[in-house]
Amino acid sequence: MKTRALSALAAALAMLAATGPAWADDKDVIEYRRHIMKSLNEQSAILGQIASGLAPADNVVAHLDTVALLASTALKAFEPKVPGGESKPAVWKDWKDFSERMQEFAQQTDAAAKLARTDGPEPALTNMLEAMSCRGCHKVYREEKK
Amino acid sequence: MKTRALSALAAALAMLAATGPAWADDKDVIEYRRHIMKSLNEQSAILGQIASGLAPADNVVAHLDTVALLASTALKAFEPKVPGGESKPAVWKDWKDFSERMQEFAQQTDAAAKLARTDGPEPALTNMLEAMSCRGCHKVYREEKK
Repeated sequence: MKTRALSALAAALAMLAATGPAWADDKDVIEYRRHIMKSLNEQSAILGQIASGLAPADNVVAHLDTVALLASTALKAFEPKVPGGESKPAVWKDWKDFSERMQEFAQQTDAAAKLARTDGPEPALTNMLEAMSCRGCHKVYREEKK
Repeated sequence: MKTRALSALAAALAMLAATGPAWADDKDVIEYRRHIMKSLNEQSAILGQIASGLAPADNVVAHLDTVALLASTALKAFEPKVPGGESKPAVWKDWKDFSERMQEFAQQTDAAAKLARTDGPEPALTNMLEAMSCRGCHKVYREEKK
């Protein structure tokens, strides 16, 4: 049963690859970006724990890499012009600024993660926390939760 | 001010590196593992969206890599014997089985992510979803939410 389900999945994926990717629904766009932002939020909390000495730093490089990967996926989640969730219409009204900030976020987190290889995890974590100044963008582009 | 805070942080991190890492509190252990499991949950939902054709596959390799990284961090979150959160006492009672499953989870997700480089994202996604049979472990080791 599981094998059959996986074969069906493989076939569906091959078809998808042939026809090209697309969003099924506006609801899916909003869900996708919430999943990315929530992942960033969880990993940001972990980096905060490590930086504050509340959790050991053993996994810090993996967490830095995770943040960089997550940041690299984020812009895609906003490309479709779908207001809703916690996104303000300003995201698309000021797309040039928004997308530049997102690209900068991806570049800076990538640089911070790479720094762990050359200079060690401590300066990398410091740079990562500086790159993740979430509030700077959130105050302009994110709807406050009621 | 920000520069001073970051300098203080860097100093704290250097001290931390010198004295060796440790958990501050049981509460921090539980929070850390919740952050990891929630991250996995969000990324699992994204892979489900992509596999079901609800979201485009553009970022699929980054999401596969993210899952492999998250899986690599998970065991550390259970090493301290701290029941609570949604972890059943069985985690530590049957530590050999639990830790072997966790290591297998990390190895299989890593192999699935690497497969994307050699065989392309479709078979990698299929293998990843097979490796992420969350329920198999959750039914034994995770407390059902009330």
